[in-house]
Amino acid sequence: MSSLNVGVIGLGRMGSLYARNLAQRVPHARLVAVADQKADLREQFANELGGVKVYASHLDLLQDKDVEAVAIVTSTSTHKQVVMDAAACGKAIFCEKPMSLSLADAYEMLRAVEKAGVFFHMAFQRRFDAGYLAAKKKVDDGVIGVPVVMTCVSRDPFRPPLEFCDPKVSGGLIADMGVHDFDLGRMFMGEVATVNAVGGALAYPEMKSVGDIDNALVNMVFENGTLGSVQLSRNAVFGYDIRTEIWGTKGSLQIGYFQHTPILVMTREGITHDVVPHFMQRFEGAYLTQIQDFVDRVRKAEPPSLTAADAIAAMRISLAATMSCREGRTVRVSEADAMAHGIAS
Amino acid sequence: MSSLNVGVIGLGRMGSLYARNLAQRVPHARLVAVADQKADLREQFANELGGVKVYASHLDLLQDKDVEAVAIVTSTSTHKQVVMDAAACGKAIFCEKPMSLSLADAYEMLRAVEKAGVFFHMAFQRRFDAGYLAAKKKVDDGVIGVPVVMTCVSRDPFRPPLEFCDPKVSGGLIADMGVHDFDLGRMFMGEVATVNAVGGALAYPEMKSVGDIDNALVNMVFENGTLGSVQLSRNAVFGYDIRTEIWGTKGSLQIGYFQHTPILVMTREGITHDVVPHFMQRFEGAYLTQIQDFVDRVRKAEPPSLTAADAIAAMRISLAATMSCREGRTVRVSEADAMAHGIAS
Amino acid sequence: MSSLNVGVIGLGRMGSLYARNLAQRVPHARLVAVADQKADLREQFANELGGVKVYASHLDLLQDKDVEAVAIVTSTSTHKQVVMDAAACGKAIFCEKPMSLSLADAYEMLRAVEKAGVFFHMAFQRRFDAGYLAAKKKVDDGVIGVPVVMTCVSRDPFRPPLEFCDPKVSGGLIADMGVHDFDLGRMFMGEVATVNAVGGALAYPEMKSVGDIDNALVNMVFENGTLGSVQLSRNAVFGYDIRTEIWGTKGSLQIGYFQHTPILVMTREGITHDVVPHFMQRFEGAYLTQIQDFVDRVRKAEPPSLTAADAIAAMRISLAATMSCREGRTVRVSEADAMAHGIAS
Amino acid sequence: MSSLNVGVIGLGRMGSLYARNLAQRVPHARLVAVADQKADLREQFANELGGVKVYASHLDLLQDKDVEAVAIVTSTSTHKQVVMDAAACGKAIFCEKPMSLSLADAYEMLRAVEKAGVFFHMAFQRRFDAGYLAAKKKVDDGVIGVPVVMTCVSRDPFRPPLEFCDPKVSGGLIADMGVHDFDLGRMFMGEVATVNAVGGALAYPEMKSVGDIDNALVNMVFENGTLGSVQLSRNAVFGYDIRTEIWGTKGSLQIGYFQHTPILVMTREGITHDVVPHFMQRFEGAYLTQIQDFVDRVRKAEPPSLTAADAIAAMRISLAATMSCREGRTVRVSEADAMAHGIAS
Repeated sequence: MSSLNVGVIGLGRMGSLYARNLAQRVPHARLVAVADQKADLREQFANELGGVKVYASHLDLLQDKDVEAVAIVTSTSTHKQVVMDAAACGKAIFCEKPMSLSLADAYEMLRAVEKAGVFFHMAFQRRFDAGYLAAKKKVDDGVIGVPVVMTCVSRDPFRPPLEFCDPKVSGGLIADMGVHDFDLGRMFMGEVATVNAVGGALAYPEMKSVGDIDNALVNMVFENGTLGSVQLSRNAVFGYDIRTEIWGTKGSLQIGYFQHTPILVMTREGITHDVVPHFMQRFEGAYLTQIQDFVDRVRKAEPPSLTAADAIAAMRISLAATMSCREGRTVRVSEADAMAHGIAS
Repeated sequence: MSSLNVGVIGLGRMGSLYARNLAQRVPHARLVAVADQKADLREQFANELGGVKVYASHLDLLQDKDVEAVAIVTSTSTHKQVVMDAAACGKAIFCEKPMSLSLADAYEMLRAVEKAGVFFHMAFQRRFDAGYLAAKKKVDDGVIGVPVVMTCVSRDPFRPPLEFCDPKVSGGLIADMGVHDFDLGRMFMGEVATVNAVGGALAYPEMKSVGDIDNALVNMVFENGTLGSVQLSRNAVFGYDIRTEIWGTKGSLQIGYFQHTPILVMTREGITHDVVPHFMQRFEGAYLTQIQDFVDRVRKAEPPSLTAADAIAAMRISLAATMSCREGRTVRVSEADAMAHGIAS
Repeated sequence: MSSLNVGVIGLGRMGSLYARNLAQRVPHARLVAVADQKADLREQFANELGGVKVYASHLDLLQDKDVEAVAIVTSTSTHKQVVMDAAACGKAIFCEKPMSLSLADAYEMLRAVEKAGVFFHMAFQRRFDAGYLAAKKKVDDGVIGVPVVMTCVSRDPFRPPLEFCDPKVSGGLIADMGVHDFDLGRMFMGEVATVNAVGGALAYPEMKSVGDIDNALVNMVFENGTLGSVQLSRNAVFGYDIRTEIWGTKGSLQIGYFQHTPILVMTREGITHDVVPHFMQRFEGAYLTQIQDFVDRVRKAEPPSLTAADAIAAMRISLAATMSCREGRTVRVSEADAMAHGIAS
Repeated sequence: MSSLNVGVIGLGRMGSLYARNLAQRVPHARLVAVADQKADLREQFANELGGVKVYASHLDLLQDKDVEAVAIVTSTSTHKQVVMDAAACGKAIFCEKPMSLSLADAYEMLRAVEKAGVFFHMAFQRRFDAGYLAAKKKVDDGVIGVPVVMTCVSRDPFRPPLEFCDPKVSGGLIADMGVHDFDLGRMFMGEVATVNAVGGALAYPEMKSVGDIDNALVNMVFENGTLGSVQLSRNAVFGYDIRTEIWGTKGSLQIGYFQHTPILVMTREGITHDVVPHFMQRFEGAYLTQIQDFVDRVRKAEPPSLTAADAIAAMRISLAATMSCREGRTVRVSEADAMAHGIAS
């Protein structure tokens, strides 16, 4: 079986990561083209990795017959158009999260993908992390009995620039950060029936000016009656704090870690270690494993690990939780469809 | 200043612990009398610790002029009567949690204590644990900036016998276990405005037969707008799992530990350690520090560290959370007063 | 069986601990008398614990017919005389480590104890620590197969005052600190055949003025061919660092811990916890368990857990290691007997 | 500055790792050729990475004008010849450890490299590990004051096949495993003056048949009077156990970690995690950083981070320690030169 020729659309921080991984670290993948509107990013990348075609427009890249598959890593507001263009061109698609700004857009993208019959992988890198993979195996092996409660902590070390906090751009804290945890909920526990969320702009009062919050607590009841908690924060100033626990009838699992560098410092001040700085460090391996999974499945004509329907399901939970937080009441996930045209994630 | 002569009413597991601590480990305390209806407990205790007067009825103990103070460790249903009797006799009172089965009873006890003008300490041992004391000091010293979110996990290693799970006896899971966490919320964050809880009999379906649940997740909004989460479970089959985190604007604190014996076993199966088995081991020091605090404050005529009003405040949160769980809606803590005559903690 | 009436000789830091434990925390023990040459210590103790007879001279205490057993916690230089006096009076003896300043003295004490036929317990509290007890059980249960290497770290948080570092008083670093680890070697691995030690006054050059060192590394070959390492230091400025590892053919054990208070502080500086400050905190439980073991065995007429012969065996290893360090060569433990009249531990 | 064209000689486990890293993960490096005597390894590699020239003989690769630098990863017995050939061809040289089987060979290689004036990097990957790099920076920043003792543990999860344990091939346990720790000693503490080692075939008695041991303890005195301990073992059956501690006058550092996958399993059996399996996983990042360092320095005409003299210095310590273990006496490192023609590392 020959290698897969991939193009990367969008050369921001995440796009560069995917491009480098595809160029250098993914067996059976060839990075053949990249596209970005910004000339300096294109130039920088062309210098770094020779022999890759460089386009200013994603449409030109999509016309390139050499390109069999694309990783779409543009800003969220453009995802709908680029995905629909890529589907129309028959390319296999890897779409970075979040899928779209509104649920309505996501449904439209889903229909376009289904109509074109193209391969579509929705990126949720945590599912490919060694810890979560090991946890899934332990649960499936019955090590902790039946899972009855899942608790998730997701905490960023600082807030994004205010313009990226604007819910019209980010979907708001609950959608922007929580969507990963809601997806994990679906992975480990099942579909969510109801959510209840509370939140506030507590650490960065200036977030109120753009209508966002910096801390939120979300409780979930799954359709099978089991429970979930998602705790979100932008003020883990010490580092990147991603933890999940799964509580079963015969035991529990903890996934996550704090320490980054394998060194302890022991002085009169106590024993100290550093902390994983941010998601690039925490999920470096997961990002690589995920894009490898995409390449392998496209090459072998296997179905994607995560679909547009998975993205929509997590988005609906995000929307319902955001609604709950705003309205101060328990919300059924099915109520999210009424918000289909509102901001999602 | 002379020693304080203390009597212990109730010689069950906790009563015996207090009695032994008072007899052997609390400086400036003298255990002078114990009372219990059960002859075998009385006899066993008299054999173990000679020179202590033994009564079958708490009323006889309260009549004993030698007794200056009493620790009330009887079953919860009797707390109201014993406290009111002790107040009438002018004894300084240490009352084990929970204060009473109903909020109405608690208010009545509060009035009796106030009317008699006696010293009344409400037991919440976690406030006297080295970890929580250190955390309080760190917060007061500004180490983590302003606390904005508190998250608590309280998990028992097994469920109580079904007859003790009956909410008419225990107050139900949320009141029985959560009252400690609600009190910690008041210690670290302030008064609670609203609560939202979800729960279920997920690990022990037989709990449904007595109307109780075994897992619950409670979210709180404090009156100052900060947030709290309490996660309760009866199925931490690996051991006793008590953890609290306080998230501030400049850092976070984690209180709690798992490992009991200081030994790691490293074999082909991985690296393994044991776990704190239950509350007696986890809070051994806190129980001792708390009763010492009681003795010291009575002797020095200082006000109690924790009052009946503190117990009532935690009880109101428990009631509101229980109500929220049953009715599937966010509940204001002030609504608890309408349940004053219902089951509390 | 009635309680055991115990007297404590020596009311320094360790003596006070034993006296309080015997008075308050050891079932079936009665503290009936204490003795110390210092009037202020006697007075302070009489005030703290009423009802205990107080003597200035150990001879007076030994004449007291009420006293059935004694804990000897005087300065090492007096151990020989006090033990021989106690043996002559027929008292059961608990002797704090180190047994004596010279091996010759120790042999003399052993003969006196044997001649009098009295119970003699040599104190090595680590053998009664929960971690070491658990390790012994794991080894005996075969969890790690056959132990082949033992490694020990013993590090003090600061150096003693120089006058106590003088090898004529302390025996020197290797004897003073290492004797615990040599005893553990005998507990877990067997008798020692040869030792090789290196050391230096590296952190506190002023120790050279009294002829002592502050760091040493000792390697041992046991008679069965297995190996041991003892690493000693006075400059663990962060806290008290006591660790042992046992490496077997099927796994390993680590005994020890650093964290004292169950709280983690997470700030921009990293994640920090405190450390066990010193031996009183690390071995609080072991000191209590050991004296309880002494009381129980005397009462039940069982043989002591640790004998004078055990002390002498550990002392011989200390002496041989000290000799090795001074002479820069591998030394057979049997060579220690030639130093019988020199400084030991 | 253009990329560096590198050839890899030897395609065994380590050679394949270097080749893949150079082909895919090292910026500014181009893998242009590989050489191995084994046809199947050549074929497998040609299939995996197209566009790389494949040679059966290292001499042919060295004649290739495209090749500017070579990584020599052949069996140790061939290092001398290949290094001398590469030096004669003027190639920059990266030489995998151990440098040679005898000290005499190493000196000869050193002279050949010096005469040819070529770049020569001796591989000791630990120096490039994030933990050791962070430790070096902490020490240099004075965080722990003056280092006075260094302790190293290096334990393999299993023994090599007996034919590779033969000291004529491996140099024996102390040289084969310990050379890394001896090099760390030079990195952190300085040159070694004397060593004393004990060891035995304790876990795998069959090692005696080839004249090797499976456990050893080595104590070192550095020329500046500070101390070091190296503890070596082949029976860490639970995983790969690499730890270093540096004890200073103001604090200590611990480098190393056990846990591999970020997941804790909590069941009735206790809390369990897995362990780093072997050196490929533990030092994956260090191997990459080291070869990158080689490429960068050759390209920038900077001196190598580690030279042939560094290798010889560590080898001399290995030899002296091996001699000490065999002869049961303390050995000066300078005595190793008398063994220059014996087996080294």
